[in-house]
Amino acid sequence: MVGDSSQTVKSYEEELALLDKSIAQMGGLAEHVLGLAFDALERRDPHLAEKVVETDRQIDALERGIEAKVVAMISRRQPSAGELRHILGAMRIASDLERIGDLGKNIAKRAHAIASQPHPKPLITGLRHMVELALSQLNDVLDAYAERDAERALAVWRDDEKLDAVYNSLFRELLTYMMEDPRNIGISTHLLFGAKNIERVGDHTTNIAETIQFLVSGEAISDDRPKSDDTSTTLITSQGAVNGSHT
Amino acid sequence: MVGDSSQTVKSYEEELALLDKSIAQMGGLAEHVLGLAFDALERRDPHLAEKVVETDRQIDALERGIEAKVVAMISRRQPSAGELRHILGAMRIASDLERIGDLGKNIAKRAHAIASQPHPKPLITGLRHMVELALSQLNDVLDAYAERDAERALAVWRDDEKLDAVYNSLFRELLTYMMEDPRNIGISTHLLFGAKNIERVGDHTTNIAETIQFLVSGEAISDDRPKSDDTSTTLITSQGAVNGSHT
Repeated sequence: MVGDSSQTVKSYEEELALLDKSIAQMGGLAEHVLGLAFDALERRDPHLAEKVVETDRQIDALERGIEAKVVAMISRRQPSAGELRHILGAMRIASDLERIGDLGKNIAKRAHAIASQPHPKPLITGLRHMVELALSQLNDVLDAYAERDAERALAVWRDDEKLDAVYNSLFRELLTYMMEDPRNIGISTHLLFGAKNIERVGDHTTNIAETIQFLVSGEAISDDRPKSDDTSTTLITSQGAVNGSHT
Repeated sequence: MVGDSSQTVKSYEEELALLDKSIAQMGGLAEHVLGLAFDALERRDPHLAEKVVETDRQIDALERGIEAKVVAMISRRQPSAGELRHILGAMRIASDLERIGDLGKNIAKRAHAIASQPHPKPLITGLRHMVELALSQLNDVLDAYAERDAERALAVWRDDEKLDAVYNSLFRELLTYMMEDPRNIGISTHLLFGAKNIERVGDHTTNIAETIQFLVSGEAISDDRPKSDDTSTTLITSQGAVNGSHT
């Protein structure tokens, strides 16, 4: 009976390891999609955009696989509270990674729309800065998960503010650019949504950080996220965007 | 032993009923938040916006309660595959409802930004139309869950196209309005993000429909969602937005 239960525990560890392997795979693909999506947008390359869509499909398939694993693991054996926390945490992280893949797809799709239009260089630079930040955050949080490093996860969680700050200033630049010349409105709108998508990638990354923190400590991070996207409260005058008033 | 297991099953049913009750509560609050958020935006009323933020906090608390219930239910007893599908489905639906609450909060926040600005009547009417559609969809999907009605869930899933269609035309109207006069850009940008948030409410509603379908039938809906938001591929000329080319 003891041998049996230790047997059970051992093969559980193996299954958890497999689960983590799928998470790492999804994470790698999510990073790949995000980088590729920006390249598609910057080069206005519809073929790259198609590649993004394909890769996003692989991410979706991996998530379905993880869910099937989770259901099988729970229903076959009685997981301990700790094991259950791990299993459900993996499922939650997979769903955040799946959404990051979708956001990458949304960004890439815009490559078709702006294929014909010239790029405002400084704005694209701002967007690249956002993508680089988002990618390094995502990379850190995936390492934090692999190492069950709550401290590192917490650092990622705190640093989301930086991404929000870049988004806020880019948001204002884009509005000002629109106001300078109506012909800039089309491209700026697409870049605005692109920037918003990257900002949301950051939110999912912080979700993952919160899951890791809970998974390691069993304690949730206090609710007040380091949210400083204030564009939703940014007042806009005919002269351009003026600083947002926090609520 | 038989009596014991039937005992277990019975109290499981009670726990599942409690879980459904929390879902229904969350759903009611999510509908409330969405309606309130639009009122806050239409009346540019910061106090209503504050109410939305408070209600969203209640939704978040309910989700945490559901997760705690789920973990307790699974770890205390060995759920059958069917029970597990129900428990995890409830958890998934709770997370979609939580995100709908967040989207409502994002919409309401914009009431502060546009408090000072006059509303373009036809555009607000378009936005109200979107909210009404999103609310009736959400209401239907919650009923479908309560009644475990896969057919009804599937109907909601199909009807998401209607919401996307309204969003697409509103998107084009807003861009054209921006191009008419740079002073319209500020308000239009906020309404654009508001409309996008409502469109995303529709996506979460279809996620819930998919969960119900899977929960009832054990079969997932085929992957091709009825997605017809083509604004990400909308080409824009200096004359205004022209119809999007699907990829």
